[in-house]
Amino acid sequence: MVTSWPRNFPGLGTGAQRIADRITQTSGGRLEVKLFSSGELVPAFGVFDAVASGEANMYHSAEYYFEKKHRGFNFFTSVPLGLTTKEMNSWITYGGGQALWDQLSGEFGVKSLLAGNTGVQMGGWFREPVATMEDLKKLTFRMPGLGGETLRQIGANAISLPGGEIFEAVQSGRIDATEWVGPYNDLAFGIQKLLKIYMYPGFHEPGTVSSLGINRTWWDGLTDSDRTLITACAQAENDVMIAEYNANNGSSLREMLSQHEVVLQAFPQDVWSEIAKVGDQVVADAAKDDLTSAKIYTSYKRFRKSVASWSEISDQAYLRARADVLGHV
Amino acid sequence: MVTSWPRNFPGLGTGAQRIADRITQTSGGRLEVKLFSSGELVPAFGVFDAVASGEANMYHSAEYYFEKKHRGFNFFTSVPLGLTTKEMNSWITYGGGQALWDQLSGEFGVKSLLAGNTGVQMGGWFREPVATMEDLKKLTFRMPGLGGETLRQIGANAISLPGGEIFEAVQSGRIDATEWVGPYNDLAFGIQKLLKIYMYPGFHEPGTVSSLGINRTWWDGLTDSDRTLITACAQAENDVMIAEYNANNGSSLREMLSQHEVVLQAFPQDVWSEIAKVGDQVVADAAKDDLTSAKIYTSYKRFRKSVASWSEISDQAYLRARADVLGHV
Repeated sequence: MVTSWPRNFPGLGTGAQRIADRITQTSGGRLEVKLFSSGELVPAFGVFDAVASGEANMYHSAEYYFEKKHRGFNFFTSVPLGLTTKEMNSWITYGGGQALWDQLSGEFGVKSLLAGNTGVQMGGWFREPVATMEDLKKLTFRMPGLGGETLRQIGANAISLPGGEIFEAVQSGRIDATEWVGPYNDLAFGIQKLLKIYMYPGFHEPGTVSSLGINRTWWDGLTDSDRTLITACAQAENDVMIAEYNANNGSSLREMLSQHEVVLQAFPQDVWSEIAKVGDQVVADAAKDDLTSAKIYTSYKRFRKSVASWSEISDQAYLRARADVLGHV
Repeated sequence: MVTSWPRNFPGLGTGAQRIADRITQTSGGRLEVKLFSSGELVPAFGVFDAVASGEANMYHSAEYYFEKKHRGFNFFTSVPLGLTTKEMNSWITYGGGQALWDQLSGEFGVKSLLAGNTGVQMGGWFREPVATMEDLKKLTFRMPGLGGETLRQIGANAISLPGGEIFEAVQSGRIDATEWVGPYNDLAFGIQKLLKIYMYPGFHEPGTVSSLGINRTWWDGLTDSDRTLITACAQAENDVMIAEYNANNGSSLREMLSQHEVVLQAFPQDVWSEIAKVGDQVVADAAKDDLTSAKIYTSYKRFRKSVASWSEISDQAYLRARADVLGHV
């Protein structure tokens, strides 16, 4: 298994290792999975080609890293104004998403499965609070993918940087603002030492999926039992990683606020709505490339409409009502 | 495996069957799991004793059905003003919950694992909208567990009924109001034919856990590999069941609104807050029985405080902001 993460990077890297270990253990060592972290066998973004070609059997990564092969891959990680973790799992597993994913990945000789999630990503770190669209337009902002494209369309200077280069880029003044993941991962990189304004919610990645990509020829040659076993291990990690993030995001957020003078601030709703609408259009445009993209987008959009109604009266309504009783952040 | 559900009951029963099948398949038939639904080997609520005694190896059920053995079991299903699905998974897996659960279940010779979740339960079905606390007090309301105890403390007449008896109890006028689970399960029982006012959010069960209970002696005699395999299958189902609920709650809600003249209505915040506060005290009181309960409650309450801050600025903030763009229910 090749991965796009540093070895044991919190959440993503520990999750990849858990999948590798779980497959080895549940198979009694019959399927012994050896993990190669980012750069050890192939570079972080070379994992897809390594698996497609059979150089590796599996990758643990995020599909949007492969959007240059096909922009449809974005829908299987996370897109602006898109689905949350729970909603994404529902679309893939019970809303037709897996069949569309199989079709897209199948074109490249890969079979992909849900294998982790970071949850809603934070909106980003800033020197000064963002109060207007003009404030956003002035920034050189580290944000990859369709979120970055959204920033570019409103006139900001969006650039893409690997996580490991963020700290230095802020320190040197190369970027004014950055998003990374959330409190757990952001605290580990020390971004709070340089920037103090931490804004929420992110519009760009509301439930970022980690995926297990498998060489299709190798997969098809496995027994039914071993395919079920690998699927169970991926699905189990899809449940465990988000639990790791949620538990540590809570405690990391408290540490940031109590020990690092971080100022937590919500985006003004009008600013958030405006950029989210642009993001929604960027997503729609990305779906115009070909028939596969169009089919994925149609399914995704229809599912979002249905599940969003339920999320509004369940998680959203409950969390708001509970916060009114227990007190707010 | 014995269960507390009718065979293939949507979500709960289909989930139990998936675990049984997955263990059989991933082990290549070495561990062949035969499922006995509610009443087939033992009654719905007799599954705990069956597993503790070794009559069955495993159960799929909900721990709060066993609260008469120990009220601490409530914390491992769901309690009023408690944790959502994501938060609950985080507490059990990364917040110290599993060790406390092992201690409690271990007293009875059982090992328990997370193995499914229904998500936030709806507030209930009513003849007339609930506008005041006085409206609630007048009702004979089907609600089990600590939620029911909460209703009793405010002066309502709360009764406990198995799901299968709800429809008839409403039809005969024996009860005025009822909660069950959410749109997916409620639609299947046809409650919308009798009652039209559907209120949200529920205060009583914000993330109801299904558990896999395992005879401890049998568990301890398994190989490490087989224990890992069973754990992976339970954890995978913990991810799949909530996806099944979420996907079908969305479509079932739309069917109720468009075809059954159901009126969806939020509880007034002051009414919700008042009953939720009483519920929170009922939970605190349930933790006073003994040292085990006190330890569980302390851990649970501390974790809720930490994770609730993160939920507020992630899922809650994102879902609210998205609804403002996409439109509300």
